[in-house]
Amino acid sequence: MFLIVLLIFLPLATTDYTPDWDSLDKRDLPRWYDASKFGIFMHWGAYSVPALKSEWMWWKWKGTNPDPEVVEFMEKNYQPGFSYADFATQFHAEYFNATRFAEVVQKAGAKYFVFTSKHHEGFTMYPSKYSWNWNSVDVGPKRDIVGELKEAFSQTDIHFGLYFSQFEWFHPMFLEDEKQNTTTYPENISYPQMIEIVEKYKPEVIWSDGDWGKTDIYWKSKDFLAWLYNSSPVKDKVVVNDRWGVDTAGKHGGFMTYADNYDPRVILGVKWESCDMMDTYSWGNRRNMRPEEIRTSYEIIDKLARTIACNGNLLLNIGPDMHGLIPPIFEERLAEVGKFLQLNGKAVYGTIPWLYQNDSNTWYTSSHKSQYKPGHPSNIVHENTDFNYQKKDKTVIYAFVLDTNKDVFKFPSIKTTEETVVTFLESNTQLKNFKQNEVLEFPYNSVPWRKLHRQDVFVIRVDFAADDPTNLRKYIGHVKKLRERKIHKEVNRRGY
Amino acid sequence: MFLIVLLIFLPLATTDYTPDWDSLDKRDLPRWYDASKFGIFMHWGAYSVPALKSEWMWWKWKGTNPDPEVVEFMEKNYQPGFSYADFATQFHAEYFNATRFAEVVQKAGAKYFVFTSKHHEGFTMYPSKYSWNWNSVDVGPKRDIVGELKEAFSQTDIHFGLYFSQFEWFHPMFLEDEKQNTTTYPENISYPQMIEIVEKYKPEVIWSDGDWGKTDIYWKSKDFLAWLYNSSPVKDKVVVNDRWGVDTAGKHGGFMTYADNYDPRVILGVKWESCDMMDTYSWGNRRNMRPEEIRTSYEIIDKLARTIACNGNLLLNIGPDMHGLIPPIFEERLAEVGKFLQLNGKAVYGTIPWLYQNDSNTWYTSSHKSQYKPGHPSNIVHENTDFNYQKKDKTVIYAFVLDTNKDVFKFPSIKTTEETVVTFLESNTQLKNFKQNEVLEFPYNSVPWRKLHRQDVFVIRVDFAADDPTNLRKYIGHVKKLRERKIHKEVNRRGY
Amino acid sequence: MFLIVLLIFLPLATTDYTPDWDSLDKRDLPRWYDASKFGIFMHWGAYSVPALKSEWMWWKWKGTNPDPEVVEFMEKNYQPGFSYADFATQFHAEYFNATRFAEVVQKAGAKYFVFTSKHHEGFTMYPSKYSWNWNSVDVGPKRDIVGELKEAFSQTDIHFGLYFSQFEWFHPMFLEDEKQNTTTYPENISYPQMIEIVEKYKPEVIWSDGDWGKTDIYWKSKDFLAWLYNSSPVKDKVVVNDRWGVDTAGKHGGFMTYADNYDPRVILGVKWESCDMMDTYSWGNRRNMRPEEIRTSYEIIDKLARTIACNGNLLLNIGPDMHGLIPPIFEERLAEVGKFLQLNGKAVYGTIPWLYQNDSNTWYTSSHKSQYKPGHPSNIVHENTDFNYQKKDKTVIYAFVLDTNKDVFKFPSIKTTEETVVTFLESNTQLKNFKQNEVLEFPYNSVPWRKLHRQDVFVIRVDFAADDPTNLRKYIGHVKKLRERKIHKEVNRRGY
Amino acid sequence: MFLIVLLIFLPLATTDYTPDWDSLDKRDLPRWYDASKFGIFMHWGAYSVPALKSEWMWWKWKGTNPDPEVVEFMEKNYQPGFSYADFATQFHAEYFNATRFAEVVQKAGAKYFVFTSKHHEGFTMYPSKYSWNWNSVDVGPKRDIVGELKEAFSQTDIHFGLYFSQFEWFHPMFLEDEKQNTTTYPENISYPQMIEIVEKYKPEVIWSDGDWGKTDIYWKSKDFLAWLYNSSPVKDKVVVNDRWGVDTAGKHGGFMTYADNYDPRVILGVKWESCDMMDTYSWGNRRNMRPEEIRTSYEIIDKLARTIACNGNLLLNIGPDMHGLIPPIFEERLAEVGKFLQLNGKAVYGTIPWLYQNDSNTWYTSSHKSQYKPGHPSNIVHENTDFNYQKKDKTVIYAFVLDTNKDVFKFPSIKTTEETVVTFLESNTQLKNFKQNEVLEFPYNSVPWRKLHRQDVFVIRVDFAADDPTNLRKYIGHVKKLRERKIHKEVNRRGY
Repeated sequence: MFLIVLLIFLPLATTDYTPDWDSLDKRDLPRWYDASKFGIFMHWGAYSVPALKSEWMWWKWKGTNPDPEVVEFMEKNYQPGFSYADFATQFHAEYFNATRFAEVVQKAGAKYFVFTSKHHEGFTMYPSKYSWNWNSVDVGPKRDIVGELKEAFSQTDIHFGLYFSQFEWFHPMFLEDEKQNTTTYPENISYPQMIEIVEKYKPEVIWSDGDWGKTDIYWKSKDFLAWLYNSSPVKDKVVVNDRWGVDTAGKHGGFMTYADNYDPRVILGVKWESCDMMDTYSWGNRRNMRPEEIRTSYEIIDKLARTIACNGNLLLNIGPDMHGLIPPIFEERLAEVGKFLQLNGKAVYGTIPWLYQNDSNTWYTSSHKSQYKPGHPSNIVHENTDFNYQKKDKTVIYAFVLDTNKDVFKFPSIKTTEETVVTFLESNTQLKNFKQNEVLEFPYNSVPWRKLHRQDVFVIRVDFAADDPTNLRKYIGHVKKLRERKIHKEVNRRGY
Repeated sequence: MFLIVLLIFLPLATTDYTPDWDSLDKRDLPRWYDASKFGIFMHWGAYSVPALKSEWMWWKWKGTNPDPEVVEFMEKNYQPGFSYADFATQFHAEYFNATRFAEVVQKAGAKYFVFTSKHHEGFTMYPSKYSWNWNSVDVGPKRDIVGELKEAFSQTDIHFGLYFSQFEWFHPMFLEDEKQNTTTYPENISYPQMIEIVEKYKPEVIWSDGDWGKTDIYWKSKDFLAWLYNSSPVKDKVVVNDRWGVDTAGKHGGFMTYADNYDPRVILGVKWESCDMMDTYSWGNRRNMRPEEIRTSYEIIDKLARTIACNGNLLLNIGPDMHGLIPPIFEERLAEVGKFLQLNGKAVYGTIPWLYQNDSNTWYTSSHKSQYKPGHPSNIVHENTDFNYQKKDKTVIYAFVLDTNKDVFKFPSIKTTEETVVTFLESNTQLKNFKQNEVLEFPYNSVPWRKLHRQDVFVIRVDFAADDPTNLRKYIGHVKKLRERKIHKEVNRRGY
Repeated sequence: MFLIVLLIFLPLATTDYTPDWDSLDKRDLPRWYDASKFGIFMHWGAYSVPALKSEWMWWKWKGTNPDPEVVEFMEKNYQPGFSYADFATQFHAEYFNATRFAEVVQKAGAKYFVFTSKHHEGFTMYPSKYSWNWNSVDVGPKRDIVGELKEAFSQTDIHFGLYFSQFEWFHPMFLEDEKQNTTTYPENISYPQMIEIVEKYKPEVIWSDGDWGKTDIYWKSKDFLAWLYNSSPVKDKVVVNDRWGVDTAGKHGGFMTYADNYDPRVILGVKWESCDMMDTYSWGNRRNMRPEEIRTSYEIIDKLARTIACNGNLLLNIGPDMHGLIPPIFEERLAEVGKFLQLNGKAVYGTIPWLYQNDSNTWYTSSHKSQYKPGHPSNIVHENTDFNYQKKDKTVIYAFVLDTNKDVFKFPSIKTTEETVVTFLESNTQLKNFKQNEVLEFPYNSVPWRKLHRQDVFVIRVDFAADDPTNLRKYIGHVKKLRERKIHKEVNRRGY
Repeated sequence: MFLIVLLIFLPLATTDYTPDWDSLDKRDLPRWYDASKFGIFMHWGAYSVPALKSEWMWWKWKGTNPDPEVVEFMEKNYQPGFSYADFATQFHAEYFNATRFAEVVQKAGAKYFVFTSKHHEGFTMYPSKYSWNWNSVDVGPKRDIVGELKEAFSQTDIHFGLYFSQFEWFHPMFLEDEKQNTTTYPENISYPQMIEIVEKYKPEVIWSDGDWGKTDIYWKSKDFLAWLYNSSPVKDKVVVNDRWGVDTAGKHGGFMTYADNYDPRVILGVKWESCDMMDTYSWGNRRNMRPEEIRTSYEIIDKLARTIACNGNLLLNIGPDMHGLIPPIFEERLAEVGKFLQLNGKAVYGTIPWLYQNDSNTWYTSSHKSQYKPGHPSNIVHENTDFNYQKKDKTVIYAFVLDTNKDVFKFPSIKTTEETVVTFLESNTQLKNFKQNEVLEFPYNSVPWRKLHRQDVFVIRVDFAADDPTNLRKYIGHVKKLRERKIHKEVNRRGY
């Protein structure tokens, strides 16, 4: 019965997409993306030179309604007439080493990497022929940053993706389009550039942004996606997000990002991603950040756990500095997260959400006894297919315990059976002396603290927990709600 | 009889040009251009920052077959990785004052001014929306140089024109067109920019360059000219040159420029222009020029005299420095030329070539007793119409004597009559005691030296010289030769 | 008997020092210094601009035997002819805020601060009149950095001191002195500068360095110290180190520093100080440091514990960057140490070494039941007076347990009595169930782990431990060895 | 009788000078200096970077009573906090070629050259060990400019001298001396530097400046000169000026300079020098000079003629730019003057003033039939010895005719005899048809204009003009007046 219902949702394997959302939205998400769970986002551009406030520095300086602090800083430290383009000349990136960046990402335990090929400033980090003398080869680093990164990541098992900003704050063609209601800018600049980055760098993620204020027609998004899915060199493995024009976020595209730093804390029936920041104030490098403004490894693990529990991926951002260096405190944080993932990765990579998402501050993931294998032909995620259930003989539950200062740890969603086995994942220690056929619980001192590398979070694996009869009903009701999209009022509310 | 023949050549007043040379070449040249005789050309761009060798510095540095001196200079004085775009950031033009430039041009006695809106480097001296972050508002001066100049010259009676380079050495689209045999660059960059400068600045001269190696079809030249002549805001007064694609120079367009520094020393049946340089080695500013490399005022006057005697205009170039200053030695030279023109302008402005062009180093111009009046409705030059003749009662002859260290000055082409009057133009002194009904001649001491402001050149005006019967025959033969264009083998041989 | 012996060592209160070591070495060390235990050292200068390798960058670049990596980096990234002085121009320190620096030091729990008024490069961080145009007011920051810091620290209870390099690598007078065997440099530059910084900034520490290779006579060190102790504005509170010329380190001056990063692990009979680095490779800012190269807070606490256990102070160095910012990872480390000191400060500040220094990886400090009071008239350290003993009723022992992953914690040097009280300092929890009249020991689970903020180190306080009869004998033998200075062969071996 | 009187003034050949003016002023001026007549002065320093207003830019910017235009320019074009020292870093002098400078000076016909080793800014154009990091080797050019020039000029017959500014506007020691009435600055900086430049570069001129406001005792001037005359390596050939402290100008030293641009137009009984500027507004390079602000070659020749006629030398200043280039218009002017001197040098070099100095705008020099020979042992100028007289058989008169637009040229001071010969110096043409035994005069047309290279000045040589009986009386009265120094009220009035 369960399987029959699911079949209704199985899309046909489409090989010929047409440039409309009905067709495009039918495409299955390549499985690698869902299995990866954790990616690193990197914002790097000319804004890394002032490294002031955020990557929106130019807008805060010269946009409508300037930030007085930015204006004052520039007045105090630069000669009159200094322009944003002058920053680019100082962008030497003399320490930039793509292999080192790849190592840092790998050590963090991330499985994909998304890099800003171009941000709203328009400065392309590769030699775009549509952005002459305003790119990283003609000015500043004098290097094809995207190209070097692509090459370095191709030596790893990390999937390589590109962020791309559709609009540019100050591109004169864009500004004129706004006034004249024309389409010169997307025709001459943004659309050709999207084709250009796909053909040159064959990215496995296209992370579109800066689409707001204009429709998917203006951006030619549907044309692009049809080409991308039908004919591009990455048509089989590429994933895209949902920022393709007014009113597409949360609705159309590949995975859903909704707003930045998205954090629903309930499961969504679609694959989604939360892009989040290591530096709480900026995506780009911020020279004067203080340690207390930087996410701790605990906060990152916490966010990761509740994200993947709810069918999301976490794309965690860091911003290198103008010299091509990742701030040591970022690298340290990533290494701490990586250490955790090295010891607890089974609860993360390739998992699927469980029937229940959390018990207050404990978050769950799960896996089937038969698992996803990298490279297997059926490794396509059919939307909602792998949805969560609880079958004693088929389900493995992972619980991320994020509040560890408790006398007794309780897991109301987990009912034990006589066969239930509870394992501390990191130390591979089995829990003894818990009650059978009841809600799982154990006291503080049952935790093998001395064998854990950190005290503020641990993960347990539960095998052979009791069947749960609410599976199907819960599922159907949930999907219905999603369709009505009543629960995501915050969609399209971008936080800048 | 003479008039009848001329009528054959009178074109109809076309108001609707079609984009083919037959139609476009029929357009009459607005009269102001021929009457002006002397213009100032100005090369100013990012090349004024290195000011090394010439405005071709970039090409000499990074082009095929680099100049070892340029390469060595850059290696010795700049950090590795310094790029041409970095120069632009240093282009402050802090002393630039458009009004001062206009004053210098006016003081030089020039009647038109042609400014490089864009040279082969592609850096536009105005905010081109097709050259974002590679123009004088986004980078360097942070000012609309073309706009300020246009405004300043509009306060004078000097005609304002723009030089425009079709190609760009290193524009990635142009380079790709070369490889792929496509037309992306002219469609996206050069053609829209030509429209842009006409609409924004309404120039009275479009001085196209950098057209070689590509056809007029590639550049869309004929489309542009048809639009320019039919519908543009300057359709009635604009003049253009002849550099519109392979094999157009010397053949199609408005006035003919042939090669740079053109100097035929025989009359041409078409209106032509010699663009020439104050600094003999460079059009752009050259920091280390030496005084002996700079044209003297005598050389300039000499070149002007033989140019206008042969139906040409002289467009004399100067290159301001990166600070926005005209080198004092240029300004001094121009002031000296201006002083000469102030005293002898009648022999220059509004004149037409005479029947004979020169007697060795003496060059002639002429005027009719009824002269060109600015603003008069018939002030259109009908090609060859105003051709030179010698009628005693209608012709005024001006002779530029450029070799003054002689015991006797002889003018074999001038036959005196009893009515002949010879006047030293500058001092308004009449010559006495010359023989009637013979070739004009007079001894050294007849010249009123103390009343002349310079001793190396003087101009005489001759009224009522004898009729010359060879007029018509000579004319017809000459035109025939021109048609066959046998005498201009050097056309298209550009001098770089 | 014990007190009588001690009296022999009591120096007279000298008020008139003569410029010889016999007299100068008799001066008592102002008590605040010993009581402070923990200071922050800060290296900041023009070397923070290249931030390459270390503050010795200039020497590594241009000294005898250059470092090929430095030479290559400079060749690759700077134009030929770029000089070290050019770095200073780029030293903007635009974010420098002295109050923030003071806050960071205070939050670290440090009680004194030593700042580089001048390093071997000669660039003074204050407007020295003996270093015109090579100081922080004329060039770079354009601010009196020392003055601003002095003012900011005077708002705290942190003692303010100054580092001063006697020699300068490349000062032409110094180089000539080397060749000519003259004394021009100290007479004209270094000696007047020492007077200058004392008079201008009234530092409580003079931390001399760069004295090697020249005698105390060349540097006029004894003259300076006599003036400093007799007549200077800081004569009552200033402390100095021991780097005053060849063969003075470890012998003469105030506290002994021996070599950099000194770490004897045995008690010394003189007050000494270990200057140590947060970045293991450099004192000055190093742009490309990696997190694994930076001391952890555990390592710092470990070093602090064993230093103060052996009669030393720890002076921990950090290097701000060219923008005036302390790297966030440094600030975080300092905050972690500060957190530890906030909870365990009683075991640190104002303590004295104990009879025994350590039991393998556990280190001891102690205090008397009647303690040092800030500002009390008798607060002068009489060298060796406050030497360590163990009297049940008078001694409080603090034990820093630095190896926490043990089944049983044993303290062989501590014998319990029936009155003995053992307290976990941080949580103020008393230990129960340990054996009386035996060596102190307790099992892993007796530690109140959940109440401790970190798991890798804890401190216990022991009151009323048993008397120890070996006190006096041990003491005398120890001092005798010190006199012979057989144990410090490493003195004068500077580690660069 | 005449000779007897002169003997009274013959000083003894002193070889041992004492440091007082009585002794120092007795020294004879080495003959080469008087014979040279024409020198080139060169101001080059860090002020050539802003090249704004004049070499006093720093003072105008930051001194008491700043020039609002300078302040505004700096505010408009530089970032806040930009300092004068920052200019020095930009002083690349990349085109500087000492040999070329020497060629330009030689081509100008100058016989000596005086270069600013240090101006009031204190930046030494050589590696002074008393100005570390504020000199041309440590900062900016990274070259020993003085050393390279010395070497280049030593390949010519041009005498090499050095300008040296005693004071420095902003040297902290000097400023403190002013407040404290101490002498630290001259003892540590200026006096040692004077010794340094003499020993390193062996200049033949020491051109002291910046002495005002302080006495010759403060500057140790008399000590320096005694050393210079007695023991220095240039004791036999060096000449010095008169700026050695308050009230020395016009009184003590070697040649007298009085004020800048001195122009008495009457003969002085002492050897003097007028330092004058090619650019009428500045000694240092001034970027935005206009041609009309630059002395013409006519003005320079005019000034030279009346200067040497009155017993002076002309030291004509030029200022190279920051790139190491002499502005072309300067070089052209110098070449024009050099051309004149090449043709008329006999009237200049080695001449002595004549009995009369001028007839309105005609100025006279003279020579004896037996002339000065370079290298001859008696080639010491005994002050006033070679004074002017008019003896028919012994005197040659040279007349510089500077107003050439006259019908008749009259020379009231010259009486012809029957033997008188008048020669146009440049063309070596003899004048015919002038009256004997009368005042010399001739009409405009007697001048061989066509043989002269310029029309605005010519020189005639007169041999065997009549004796003049007023010689001795005039001489004595003149010297008496000089002694009383009533005619030089303008002495010490410096023009800044």
